[in-house]
Amino acid sequence: MTIADSLVGRTVAILGGAGPEGRGLARRFAVAGLPVVVGSRSAERAAAAAAELSAATGAEVRGAGATDAVRDADLVVVAVSWDDHAGMLHDLRDQLAGKIVVDTVCPIALDDHGPYLLHVWEGSAAQQAQSLLPASSVVGAFHHLPGDVLDAEGELDTDVLVVGDDDTAVDVVRDLVATIPGARGVYAGRLRSALQVEALWANLLSVEERTGRRAGYRVTGL
Amino acid sequence: MTIADSLVGRTVAILGGAGPEGRGLARRFAVAGLPVVVGSRSAERAAAAAAELSAATGAEVRGAGATDAVRDADLVVVAVSWDDHAGMLHDLRDQLAGKIVVDTVCPIALDDHGPYLLHVWEGSAAQQAQSLLPASSVVGAFHHLPGDVLDAEGELDTDVLVVGDDDTAVDVVRDLVATIPGARGVYAGRLRSALQVEALWANLLSVEERTGRRAGYRVTGL
Repeated sequence: MTIADSLVGRTVAILGGAGPEGRGLARRFAVAGLPVVVGSRSAERAAAAAAELSAATGAEVRGAGATDAVRDADLVVVAVSWDDHAGMLHDLRDQLAGKIVVDTVCPIALDDHGPYLLHVWEGSAAQQAQSLLPASSVVGAFHHLPGDVLDAEGELDTDVLVVGDDDTAVDVVRDLVATIPGARGVYAGRLRSALQVEALWANLLSVEERTGRRAGYRVTGL
Repeated sequence: MTIADSLVGRTVAILGGAGPEGRGLARRFAVAGLPVVVGSRSAERAAAAAAELSAATGAEVRGAGATDAVRDADLVVVAVSWDDHAGMLHDLRDQLAGKIVVDTVCPIALDDHGPYLLHVWEGSAAQQAQSLLPASSVVGAFHHLPGDVLDAEGELDTDVLVVGDDDTAVDVVRDLVATIPGARGVYAGRLRSALQVEALWANLLSVEERTGRRAGYRVTGL
């Protein structure tokens, strides 16, 4: 796979990179040849995850505490839990200024009836991020990719809906999606249309619960 | 195409059946061999649409004012505009009791920046319908099927996400989806997960605006 010009020489930091989805994304980007830094509140967990990923892929993956991880990154992927979302971004506001911040977080909770959408006063996780990070370009993407599928060898069979107000940043993120075999980034509207892309995870979880199959989606007609 | 047992002998009424999406759905169901009644606030518009559909398809399609249209129907498809949604359902509360109500309505508006999701106090159009129709089984489906594609001969290439709390009603609606060639109904969660299915239309409109292509989606992995 050839890396798009927009990504050449750009370092990707993954916040929440020691968690399942973050770790899986880190693995895919490292395999694609991008410089990757795994970031976590705990520098030790980040270093351990990075060492495992380096051993598994043969690529060099760095690990660092969150602040250090984002310092030299051009693109920062946010793959933390919803509970950590606002606090982590608030703390990194200055470090993230001028960067592309790729928000993967879904404001979804689970109860006895299954998954459901939480109310977010800003409208969506991505809009909350943009509100907390006025000097960053926030793009929503990578919302429903299962960590265990990402953290393995196989091709995916899914599109990734990409939402954002900054067309240049959106196109960079679509190039980032394209580094994962079988994934395709599709522009799907402005940041104010992020909520339903995030929330669709609840529906896909319901599909999986009913069918026992791992569900993704493809946009048809393109 | 064989009609599923759950649909045999059942009459489908389409509220908003003189509008583009309702008319297209009416056409497809009539072609599939289901008894169809086109309903509209205006009995004259309904009768005119029904006559056109009968002529175009060779099937017998009836037209009637909204109250008359739903009286003998087992399944009622709501394809009115968002502006008419609450008022029309409020007025038909008694007539719709005991029936399956299939809500296709998307609470989406357009401004200079494109489509955007409206705030619905009940959570979604489908939840608003269930709240207005406590004695009906509300199911959300058929949200993003373009009227002009429906109101023609060709096969579709899209899944239809179906949400609802009543599993029996959900399965009937999935059978109804299956009467349209190329469409597949996929259970996608409870009524509280309807918002994002309705709102996804905004994203598909953005895809279309950016690419110039008519976009649908397929759930993968099933």
